[in-house]
Amino acid sequence: MFHHSKDLQFNARVSRPDPVFANILLEQFGGENGELAAAMQYFTQAFGAKQPHPDKYDMLMDIATEEFSHLEIVGATIQMLLKGINGELKDAADASEIMQVLDGNAAKENIIHSALTANPHFVMLSSGGPRLANSQGIPWCASYIHSNGDLTVDLRSNLASESRAKLVYEHLMKFTDDPYVKETLSFLMTREVAHYKMFEAALDTIQPNFPPGVLQADPRFTQQYFNLSPENSFEGPWNTGEMPGMGKDWELIEDPITFVKVTDGLTDLPDRKAEETEETEALNIKMSEEKSAEVKSSEPEGIAQWSEYSNEI
Amino acid sequence: MFHHSKDLQFNARVSRPDPVFANILLEQFGGENGELAAAMQYFTQAFGAKQPHPDKYDMLMDIATEEFSHLEIVGATIQMLLKGINGELKDAADASEIMQVLDGNAAKENIIHSALTANPHFVMLSSGGPRLANSQGIPWCASYIHSNGDLTVDLRSNLASESRAKLVYEHLMKFTDDPYVKETLSFLMTREVAHYKMFEAALDTIQPNFPPGVLQADPRFTQQYFNLSPENSFEGPWNTGEMPGMGKDWELIEDPITFVKVTDGLTDLPDRKAEETEETEALNIKMSEEKSAEVKSSEPEGIAQWSEYSNEI
Amino acid sequence: MFHHSKDLQFNARVSRPDPVFANILLEQFGGENGELAAAMQYFTQAFGAKQPHPDKYDMLMDIATEEFSHLEIVGATIQMLLKGINGELKDAADASEIMQVLDGNAAKENIIHSALTANPHFVMLSSGGPRLANSQGIPWCASYIHSNGDLTVDLRSNLASESRAKLVYEHLMKFTDDPYVKETLSFLMTREVAHYKMFEAALDTIQPNFPPGVLQADPRFTQQYFNLSPENSFEGPWNTGEMPGMGKDWELIEDPITFVKVTDGLTDLPDRKAEETEETEALNIKMSEEKSAEVKSSEPEGIAQWSEYSNEI
Amino acid sequence: MFHHSKDLQFNARVSRPDPVFANILLEQFGGENGELAAAMQYFTQAFGAKQPHPDKYDMLMDIATEEFSHLEIVGATIQMLLKGINGELKDAADASEIMQVLDGNAAKENIIHSALTANPHFVMLSSGGPRLANSQGIPWCASYIHSNGDLTVDLRSNLASESRAKLVYEHLMKFTDDPYVKETLSFLMTREVAHYKMFEAALDTIQPNFPPGVLQADPRFTQQYFNLSPENSFEGPWNTGEMPGMGKDWELIEDPITFVKVTDGLTDLPDRKAEETEETEALNIKMSEEKSAEVKSSEPEGIAQWSEYSNEI
Amino acid sequence: MFHHSKDLQFNARVSRPDPVFANILLEQFGGENGELAAAMQYFTQAFGAKQPHPDKYDMLMDIATEEFSHLEIVGATIQMLLKGINGELKDAADASEIMQVLDGNAAKENIIHSALTANPHFVMLSSGGPRLANSQGIPWCASYIHSNGDLTVDLRSNLASESRAKLVYEHLMKFTDDPYVKETLSFLMTREVAHYKMFEAALDTIQPNFPPGVLQADPRFTQQYFNLSPENSFEGPWNTGEMPGMGKDWELIEDPITFVKVTDGLTDLPDRKAEETEETEALNIKMSEEKSAEVKSSEPEGIAQWSEYSNEI
Amino acid sequence: MFHHSKDLQFNARVSRPDPVFANILLEQFGGENGELAAAMQYFTQAFGAKQPHPDKYDMLMDIATEEFSHLEIVGATIQMLLKGINGELKDAADASEIMQVLDGNAAKENIIHSALTANPHFVMLSSGGPRLANSQGIPWCASYIHSNGDLTVDLRSNLASESRAKLVYEHLMKFTDDPYVKETLSFLMTREVAHYKMFEAALDTIQPNFPPGVLQADPRFTQQYFNLSPENSFEGPWNTGEMPGMGKDWELIEDPITFVKVTDGLTDLPDRKAEETEETEALNIKMSEEKSAEVKSSEPEGIAQWSEYSNEI
Repeated sequence: MFHHSKDLQFNARVSRPDPVFANILLEQFGGENGELAAAMQYFTQAFGAKQPHPDKYDMLMDIATEEFSHLEIVGATIQMLLKGINGELKDAADASEIMQVLDGNAAKENIIHSALTANPHFVMLSSGGPRLANSQGIPWCASYIHSNGDLTVDLRSNLASESRAKLVYEHLMKFTDDPYVKETLSFLMTREVAHYKMFEAALDTIQPNFPPGVLQADPRFTQQYFNLSPENSFEGPWNTGEMPGMGKDWELIEDPITFVKVTDGLTDLPDRKAEETEETEALNIKMSEEKSAEVKSSEPEGIAQWSEYSNEI
Repeated sequence: MFHHSKDLQFNARVSRPDPVFANILLEQFGGENGELAAAMQYFTQAFGAKQPHPDKYDMLMDIATEEFSHLEIVGATIQMLLKGINGELKDAADASEIMQVLDGNAAKENIIHSALTANPHFVMLSSGGPRLANSQGIPWCASYIHSNGDLTVDLRSNLASESRAKLVYEHLMKFTDDPYVKETLSFLMTREVAHYKMFEAALDTIQPNFPPGVLQADPRFTQQYFNLSPENSFEGPWNTGEMPGMGKDWELIEDPITFVKVTDGLTDLPDRKAEETEETEALNIKMSEEKSAEVKSSEPEGIAQWSEYSNEI
Repeated sequence: MFHHSKDLQFNARVSRPDPVFANILLEQFGGENGELAAAMQYFTQAFGAKQPHPDKYDMLMDIATEEFSHLEIVGATIQMLLKGINGELKDAADASEIMQVLDGNAAKENIIHSALTANPHFVMLSSGGPRLANSQGIPWCASYIHSNGDLTVDLRSNLASESRAKLVYEHLMKFTDDPYVKETLSFLMTREVAHYKMFEAALDTIQPNFPPGVLQADPRFTQQYFNLSPENSFEGPWNTGEMPGMGKDWELIEDPITFVKVTDGLTDLPDRKAEETEETEALNIKMSEEKSAEVKSSEPEGIAQWSEYSNEI
Repeated sequence: MFHHSKDLQFNARVSRPDPVFANILLEQFGGENGELAAAMQYFTQAFGAKQPHPDKYDMLMDIATEEFSHLEIVGATIQMLLKGINGELKDAADASEIMQVLDGNAAKENIIHSALTANPHFVMLSSGGPRLANSQGIPWCASYIHSNGDLTVDLRSNLASESRAKLVYEHLMKFTDDPYVKETLSFLMTREVAHYKMFEAALDTIQPNFPPGVLQADPRFTQQYFNLSPENSFEGPWNTGEMPGMGKDWELIEDPITFVKVTDGLTDLPDRKAEETEETEALNIKMSEEKSAEVKSSEPEGIAQWSEYSNEI
Repeated sequence: MFHHSKDLQFNARVSRPDPVFANILLEQFGGENGELAAAMQYFTQAFGAKQPHPDKYDMLMDIATEEFSHLEIVGATIQMLLKGINGELKDAADASEIMQVLDGNAAKENIIHSALTANPHFVMLSSGGPRLANSQGIPWCASYIHSNGDLTVDLRSNLASESRAKLVYEHLMKFTDDPYVKETLSFLMTREVAHYKMFEAALDTIQPNFPPGVLQADPRFTQQYFNLSPENSFEGPWNTGEMPGMGKDWELIEDPITFVKVTDGLTDLPDRKAEETEETEALNIKMSEEKSAEVKSSEPEGIAQWSEYSNEI
Repeated sequence: MFHHSKDLQFNARVSRPDPVFANILLEQFGGENGELAAAMQYFTQAFGAKQPHPDKYDMLMDIATEEFSHLEIVGATIQMLLKGINGELKDAADASEIMQVLDGNAAKENIIHSALTANPHFVMLSSGGPRLANSQGIPWCASYIHSNGDLTVDLRSNLASESRAKLVYEHLMKFTDDPYVKETLSFLMTREVAHYKMFEAALDTIQPNFPPGVLQADPRFTQQYFNLSPENSFEGPWNTGEMPGMGKDWELIEDPITFVKVTDGLTDLPDRKAEETEETEALNIKMSEEKSAEVKSSEPEGIAQWSEYSNEI
């Protein structure tokens, strides 16, 4: 159950209207790396986490709720950056001071023209408020969020999401010189860094967490690096030497076309790794048992109830 | 700023898993008339309402927050209806009891098969949790919501939204016989009715509220009913007699093709309504002044601050 | 079956090209509140209305057909506002007078540059004609329309749609000073008001029409107003006093967190309203019978035929 | 201006309800190759065609109007195929005969279950009517249509659209054995073939119509066929012998990697075709003049008016 | 299996940055008629073509691979047109030379401002690189492509696609005066013409290829031209005289409303064409047998293997 | 420039048709975590990486090209799983053995019915081939991919993408018992693990790589953990003790509502961290200079050329 306090988490202020900046700030209101995307991602992940991992559920709901609160800060800032537009639009009978949009020579070269240029929807659809869309007018879409029912995957999705959101705030800060807005952005950007560290710490408490999910990598296909763009190639720790944390070496396939042909499409590899394959299968069974039991044992028998209300069921 | 309490607003319970119903219930989680759509619609409308209409802002935030809480109830119910799937999927090495998806004759005719049939994403993407999508897998999209910066319009959008959401819950109740789920749906359906009445009452406090917006209808074009599908036509209060609450009569154009031709595309109407047009223009100016002043006077001069923090700005 | 007359319903004219206005006018051609959205909404609703409510079917088809005719007016206006672009683009070998888009210092500072700035698709994709997209280039999408197979719901959706469309035309009128275009917009805006009144009158002929659909509200959950954003709260007819037209009083829950806890998630409410619940159930059965019979009895037995052709079937 | 006659263009009939077929038939109501897509494609193309090519405008509007009429036929057929669902849903208090969706053992194994399985939206959202979506629930979207402001391109888009629509009807006919439905589909499929021939004939009246648009192909890059998937290659008239209707031969580049390297990325081709390039440039200038003049000369000076109303402007 | 060579197929160069042109060039990177659309269309079509038509499979993969290579050229050109932006954005602490986006009076009137105006995502999301979106920011979407599993249809879709892509390049060439960019565009435009000819030649090798698909047109409904927009009508080879290549004459229905009524919705046509119908049915059976056998006989019995690897299966 | 070899990278085989599995496998052809998403993500990222980081460019193109090759493997497998459908559909005149879709009692209970049930588009649109859509028919969309022009962000996006893709393959393996298909899936799943390790190693070569981007976290807002879902809370390394790798401790805000109020919306924090803020600003300037110089110095002056062709420019 959610509650709302009319005080913002951060005291957002704006020195003067700026429709151009309001428009690009939409990116963090209704954009792919914005606050709604973050809030809905963690909120949706939390449902699956609740029973097997109540501690992670608690963390996901804490952070999701903070992201909703950030969404409100961003929306409030956009609304303040568009001050004046709603009032102008309500002056609907303004017949004497006709605006000339085409040639821009109008006497009334004002906030409403800036808004129209920055984002036609500010004057046509939202009447000077935030829209749940990005800076190019694309409505927010749930395909922006990732929630896959496995914390070793979901927490990694979150590390990536926080990284992207941080970068967008960093870029946004270049396009305003309003010290109040800059301070709000600095707060929001920093919280993405803090959340990153929370998710990193949480992922570290799950061991093993690699490979993500349950199954191990198939030893026959783990080590090859296929040099499929072969000219001007570089060597680096991603194709040469030891695979990080895997206890194996990379196997650089210099000429993949030939290699694939001679191995009959990788089905006739020189080293069939029979022993490793057996070990992998045993590990798969062990991991399956453990991970599956972890979930199943946390689910109550019989009628399910979400909250801990006292009434008998 | 939002806060979260781990207790649901309503004590949602589920007797037994039911992936088919979980799938159709997605309609109210990530669908066009669902709880996120309602929550985001009122939340987005609230930004513009805050300064000129703090009472409506308060109401919109109260209801938006309740809708977020309903979203949580729906998500929790879906999660409970999918009990067992996540655990089955983590049993990833399950090599001995191979499933035969094609012919359905498998020994293991279980929950995971039901889920796959009901919604492939339950087993491929969400691993047994809610997705922010509708019952056909379409990701939730912000084009579902309406927020236009004018309460005489926004509140009418809300009356329509609540009507649709109520109807979907009514239909959902036909497809479950789980008494706990039915009770939850009855609660959710009823709250849509309650919200409808709240919005109706709020709209009534704004006078005049018709036509929505500021400008009056152009008297030359208000009364005609164009009979454009002319066979087997019916008369009713929508084309005959008095226009409701307008003090005018409908003017039924039986043969629009001819009427349009002889009036040179309605530019040469028999009754030019010169007097009424003048009155309308005067009323437009008056309404513009009032409505515009209402907004402009509520906006503070100088630096804008959203919350009422005490520090000087 | 549709027919087309080459004369527009309104004699649309344009004084001079204006790509900026053409672009924002797209909002009513291919936007969420535009003419196609209205036309398709009523057209789609009409299918379900035909048999039980042939009078409403007639009205929906009359208005849908008018909206198609308005779509044509809007498209024609956009085309006229873009006069010159198609011809310029066909001058494809124009090698001597190269355009410098970047710095804008080109000698040929003409209509095609205005179009490019207003909407790149005017020069890249539509070659100077209307696109079925909104003013930010988002293609028209059927998730804009609402058609739910119940007139008490559909007609309310239509009241909201007409309200929004009216507001957009009001805003559009501020951005042109072409008297011909203004007159066309005044016509189109006014027709939205007229349609609003038609739908209102039609809804009023269906009694009872509240709650929308068939089922009554559950008396246990109808009256509460949850004060979920509790600071600086306001009282109004939406949370205090009588619920409009319901013969009941609002019940303002000042502290929802506590209330929910002590009522075990609203399952242990102080007043269980047993008698009212019984009455409601009886009413539900009565309404179900009536509404269901209304539809079923209107459907012919045996082979279905849509039109009233005379041939035996 | 559009008009509507309540008689369908074809006397659509249905022997018995069939929700499964209703669902796949949605493909031609709200799908990418369906009737709305066709109608909107030709309708949108018509705006640009009106002045320079009034004969093609007439044809496009004739066919667009027929496609709207086909959309109505498809919608009516879907509605008839779903007979019974709306009535069942209105029987909302149906408490005694609870449906068991999960295991399908319900006594009431009826039309509404078939509908739910075929398309959840038939029971949740449309209540037994057509939705403007395809057979998988994707809302119709204007990115399905092509309208590019040049008849040599638009008519080719139409040939492709008619071909796809014809094929879908052909496939649909395999999935019904209702002779009335089959007859309707046969009519609709055949009309796509007829329209194909209309567009083909119209394209043929424009000479030259190849290359589409105005500019000629650059002679340096016209003839090469790059054999980029080189194994098991085939020769055919698409890479060997004469290019159809071009008076040139294909130039098959057997080893594109080497060819590109030795020609410095095709900038140092052996045959620079200086003479042909000059001719091409001359032809470009000539075509530009003609095509551009054709459009420009058809546009009236001064105030633009769409229809031929008699009033002076 | 794909391979990549770091050399572009064409030596793309750029004289100077130009964010405005970079933005409109996105149309061919991530737009509906762009290179990814072409590549994915032919690539997807190729799967179905492989077994019955290995020669067409070879051609489709050759051209698909060329289109991927063109996608790379377009992306590289956009990246070069945005030179400077990524470096500017990384200068994130740039506190002294604050940019004033609103009034544009900033001292630093540079590339980054041009980019922001041209496309906010260049500075917010892509940091100065190409996005897989069109010039209005709409993400690329697979509903742009057509792949229907029948070469008589697919090749026609390709003729239309190439026509549209050619036209967009023609338009793009008007908006740059950079000779290097113009040359690259000339190369890309010309290749669309070359591909058109390849597809045309391939379609011609399939006989008969009309009507597309298998079934013949129903002789009862093939010849009528419905004059549904009857005023100011034109006659042309699309409604008068012989249908091209069909050996039949058009039948112009001057008054479709009456015609439909007197024929009972076309079910009681004067000429029932019994003989032709019989011939058509015979031809349908013959074509079905041939076309079906062509596909079925090309599919191997038993285990399917895609590539021609030598290992026994 | 791309090239294609007709041999698949892995020798994909299929024992027998299985439309149900073909449909869920679409998830990795045209779904959000599928092979096209991976290929396009790395391909798009590569453009920005090319000049400052040619080694990472090489790696990104190697892996992107492998993902395109995997897309081909998945498409080929789907095509083989749908064997028989295309041939059946071409048997279009099949009049004697009518299919009864509704009740499923048809004599011809065959592959085509399975396909229709699994995915209507297999029989309506793709005629038995892969569609660029996910398992619920949603067309692939570029909003699935992340490319942000900063390797410290992009490589983290890739770690998350590979994690999700790995999990989907793990789930897919539960739904087939065809040993050939299982082997292909095991190959594809394992390659995601291998790619994960490549991206991890590459990220590690960039130091420092945290925070992602250029700017440091604002020391005033870095350490707080807001306990916004306060009941049944847990402590863990994500809110208690040391922040991983930051040399600072978490600061757990137990009662955020009060904390925010007393700090005036966090603008009046007890510890203003003046010294740390100064250090951070110095570090921001240093990092900006370094990162910016790294990019700018790698960009050539004057005319830009993508490939290393020898011709003078």
